[in-house]
Order: sequence, then C-alpha cells, then structure tokens
Amino acid sequence: MASYLITGASRGFGLALARQLASLPASDVSKVFATARGESPALEGLAKTSSGRVVVVNLDVTNEVAVKQAAAEVEAKLEGKGLDVLINNAGVCQYASEGVKSMDNLAESFTINVLGVHWVTRAFLPLLQKGSLKKVANISSTLGSITLARSAHYLPAPAYKISKAAMNSLTVQYALDYEKEGFTFIALAPGWMKTDLGGGDMADLTPEEAAKASLDIIFRPGQELNGQFPKVFVQGWEKAKGNNQYDGSNSAW
Amino acid sequence: MASYLITGASRGFGLALARQLASLPASDVSKVFATARGESPALEGLAKTSSGRVVVVNLDVTNEVAVKQAAAEVEAKLEGKGLDVLINNAGVCQYASEGVKSMDNLAESFTINVLGVHWVTRAFLPLLQKGSLKKVANISSTLGSITLARSAHYLPAPAYKISKAAMNSLTVQYALDYEKEGFTFIALAPGWMKTDLGGGDMADLTPEEAAKASLDIIFRPGQELNGQFPKVFVQGWEKAKGNNQYDGSNSAW
Ligand SMILES: NC(=O)c1ccc[n+]([C@@H]2O[C@H](COP(=O)([O-])OP(=O)(O)OC[C@H]3O[C@@H](n4cnc5c(N)ncnc54)[C@H](OP(=O)(O)O)[C@@H]3O)[C@@H](O)[C@H]2O)c1
Ligand SMILES: NC(=O)c1ccc[n+]([C@@H]2O[C@H](COP(=O)([O-])OP(=O)(O)OC[C@H]3O[C@@H](n4cnc5c(N)ncnc54)[C@H](OP(=O)(O)O)[C@@H]3O)[C@@H](O)[C@H]2O)c1
Repeated sequence: MASYLITGASRGFGLALARQLASLPASDVSKVFATARGESPALEGLAKTSSGRVVVVNLDVTNEVAVKQAAAEVEAKLEGKGLDVLINNAGVCQYASEGVKSMDNLAESFTINVLGVHWVTRAFLPLLQKGSLKKVANISSTLGSITLARSAHYLPAPAYKISKAAMNSLTVQYALDYEKEGFTFIALAPGWMKTDLGGGDMADLTPEEAAKASLDIIFRPGQELNGQFPKVFVQGWEKAKGNNQYDGSNSAW
Repeated sequence: MASYLITGASRGFGLALARQLASLPASDVSKVFATARGESPALEGLAKTSSGRVVVVNLDVTNEVAVKQAAAEVEAKLEGKGLDVLINNAGVCQYASEGVKSMDNLAESFTINVLGVHWVTRAFLPLLQKGSLKKVANISSTLGSITLARSAHYLPAPAYKISKAAMNSLTVQYALDYEKEGFTFIALAPGWMKTDLGGGDMADLTPEEAAKASLDIIFRPGQELNGQFPKVFVQGWEKAKGNNQYDGSNSAW
C-alpha cells in the first residue's frame, strides 16, 4: 500500500514508470501521482483506466511557486496520509554541437535538472516524512559520472553531463541530511533508453524494461543504497556493454 | 617568460597567487593580469610596486559581456602574444544553516562558481591557444568531491559543494575537448586556507603557503594532470590530516 509521485510522466521513462506501477496490485501500489507540465493524452488514457489509482497533477519543475501548489494539491488528495516514494524523473538533455566552448544552455539545463529536483524534493519533504518508505530516486545517468567522462566524450552534451553531476551532488546532500530519519535518497542510472531524449531506436532498453529494472532498485528494502549511484541490473546485458552499465553495481561519481 | 591571468585577485588566495607570481623573476613570469570586480587597495599596491608586471583588470565573472570586454583589453595589452596560464579563482562559499532543505542560494553559487568559470574560460580560450603553456587551473575544493561528501557533512554549505562538483565536471569537459591541442585543465584543491572564505585563523594554511604549493602543481610540465583533481602537497601536513588533504595525490571526484 505505497504511494508514488513521478515528475515528467507525460512520456518516455516517466510514463513507463507510471504504467508499470499502475500494473501492480493495489495492495502494493495505492496511488501514483503522475505529474506533467502540459497535456499528455497517453498519461490521461492511463489515468482513465486506472480506477482512480493514477492521478494526473500539473507540475512544471522550474516554477517553484507551482511546485508548492502541486504539493498542496497532492497533500489534499492523500487525505492525511503521507507520500512514500518520490521519483524525480523530469529532465532535459541539451547539446552543444561544437563542444563545451559552444555551450549556451548550461543555466537552462541546471534549472530543470538540478534546481527543479531541489524544489520538488523540498516541497514534498513534509509529505515524505509522514510516509512509511521515505524513498527518493533522482533519475541520473552514467553520463553524469565525472570519473567515466572520458568514455562519454563522444556525446557532445556537456550541459547534460554537468547538470547530472550537480544533481548527483545534490542527491548526496539530501541523503546525508535525512539518513537518520530513515530516508533513502539515490541517484539512479536507468541505462540508455529508447525515448525522445535517448534518441530512439539506437538505444539499449525500452522504457518498460528500464522501468522494471529501476523499480527493482527502488523497491529494495533498507537504507543500504542511501547516497549511492546504483545502475540497473538487466539480465543478458550485464557483461555485453562497456562500463558495466547494466550490472546493478553502484557507479563511481 | 610566461603570462598569467587570475580572477578574484582582490583578496585571499587570488591576491596571494598574484603576489607569489610577482615575486618570481621576470624571466619566469612576464605578466600577471590580476582581475578584481571592485576596488582593492592591496592589489593596487602590488601593481604599483611591480614595475608594470602586475596589471589590474576589472572583471566580474558573472557578467559575460564584461568578461568578453576584459578579454579584449588583455589581448590588446599582450600585443600579439598569447596568454599562458589562466587561474579561475574567483568564487563564493554560501551556507544554508538548516541544511540542504533551507538552501536558497544554489542558483547564485552556480552562477559565480560554474557559469563564471565557463564564461571566463571560453572568452580567454583564443588567447590561451596562442600561448605556449596552455594551462587552466580551476580552483576547486575537496568539499566538491561527491565521494568524500560524508566526511564534509558537518559543514552546512550545500550550494558550495554542489557548485564545486559541477565546476569539476565542467573542468573535465574542457580537459577532454582541448587535450589534443596540448591543453592541461585541472580542478585544483588548494587546502583549507586562512582567508575570509576559509573562516580565518582556524584554517590550516596561510594563503601564501597554499599559493606556493598550488603553483608547484601549476608549474608542473606536461599534460599528465589534464582532467584531474590534484590536491596540494604540503610538507609536514601530509599525514596529519584526514582525507590525505595535503599529500599531493589526485582527489576522487
Ligand atoms: N533516455 C535515456 O537514455 C536516459 C538515460 C539516462 C537517464 N535518463 C533520464 O531519465 C529521465 C527521463 O528521460 P526520458 O528519456 O524519458 O526523456 P523524455 O522522453 O525527453 O521525457 C522527459 C520528460 O521530462 C519532462 N520535462 C522536461 N522539462 C520539464 C519541466 N520543466 N517540468 C516538468 N517536466 C519536464 C518532459 O515533459 P514534456 O513532455 O512536457 O516535455 C517529459 O515528461 C531524465 O531525467 C533523463 O535525464 C534518460
Ligand atoms: N579558503 C579556503 O579554505 C578554500 C578552500 C578550497 C578552495 N577555495 C577556493 O579558493 C578560491 C578563492 O577563495 P578565497 O578563500 O580566497 O576566498 P575570498 O577571500 O572570499 O576571496 C574570494 C575572491 O573571489 C572574488 N569574487 C567573488 N565573486 C566574484 C565575482 N562575481 N566576480 C569576480 N570576483 C568575484 C572576490 O572578489 P571581491 O573581493 O570583490 O568580493 C575575491 O577576490 C575560491 O574559488 C574558493 O572556493 C578556498
């Protein structure tokens, strides 16, 4: 009987997470607050067939006032209960075709991928403190690993890499501040997915495969992963790729 | 006969670096462009007694237009020569007394400590490409290490830690893009210094000691440190402190 909130559930990985959660028994997943900043027919469709378990909430993570309003709206809908799991999934991947010197979108990437995560997290923190699982998964990427930067140099997305590194650091700040209260904050690397952001069919995993593997991590009991950077475990992929991207181990920062 | 540019040379570590460079023979250090965003009697005094080797340049790193103007001014003063070494030192350390949830200064810290470094670096890149040493030292801190975050949790400066982690990632993006041209970009950890930012006398090193030890790293020939996070080596301190902060090794990210 756990409740979830997912940001950026209009499409891609966020939508797949909402679908996957909604497919589980109501005894496991009581409510899924699926947030989107605009219209999403796919998400509306999911909500309509969910018997009230999937609730669509309007949320632009870059507008802190709106984020607080969304938290108040969710609080009212929880009718005194807490929120169990927050998944900060909304994000953008911006490119700089001539490399880092041509990067003019770092501030924008930072606002969405880092400030947005911070604003959503602190707005929902009181509800999470009332919840029983106390889990926050910030969707990261091995592209945000500074240690692994050389192997990702081929991809001219410096603002994405830098903002995910900053989000990783933010995740650890929360992890350390709220560990004693029983929280588990993780920076989760879901793998390369066939979404708009992932560039479509070239990628390794369908968003459904990645959602399943990511929820395996999120469902894990205990606080062992607090402040860590786990990668998903995907059977068959674990030895096939460089960087051990699918071996379920924690990534280096 | 190398030329240097240091940002944030009005006081603290930046001023100590400028002093230290000015004390070396003109055959080693031909020019020191010491930048400050406001008045600095100490820096003006240094410039006056430097026989023209220390040149004060007005530069607020958060104003990209002004940064470009400063680069044009320095270009004119170099009279066709290149710039050899850039030290991105200007920075702020902002606190959040009730921990990360009370952090309202992340955007400001990011603008100064990360966007500022990016804007200065790309504005001076053409001059550095004409230079012979091609070195860029971004002044970082082990507080920016995500790996070491637990041991730094006592210090409620999340915006500082997150912005330095992001600056480290930015440094590596530049390191990888310009390695083939002979550049060395480093994120340099100078140790805990007795400056306004460091909190004064409690700290380990005088800015002069840290400047000397940091220049030892910056003067090192070759590109071995490109994309690394070196800590200073300080005799006597190397085994006395936790985290091996003064052992001259590279920090984990
Ligand atoms: N795809 C990959 O290979 C991959 C790999 C590692 C990590 N990730 C991470 O996974 C997460 C989801 O990515 P994805 O592949 O599903 O990308 P996607 O298909 O492009 O979807 C991005 C989602 O984020 C939302 N979003 C963007 N800006 C927002 C804002 N300001 N406020 C609220 N929502 C916003 C989008 O909403 P709109 O529909 O309104 O634009 C959309 O729902 C991201 O954090 C990404 O970094 C992806
Ligand atoms: N002190 C330590 O223990 C320590 C440890 C590790 C790393 N560091 C790093 O060392 C660097 C220097 O620190 P410090 O200890 O010397 O600090 P400080 O004494 O506070 O001096 C900071 C310098 O940065 C300048 N600055 C701040 N914002 C600026 C802006 N927007 N544009 C231009 N200049 C700006 C200041 O100029 P104004 O005088 O105009 O304010 C001053 O010159 C920083 O990057 C810091 O993160 C310090």
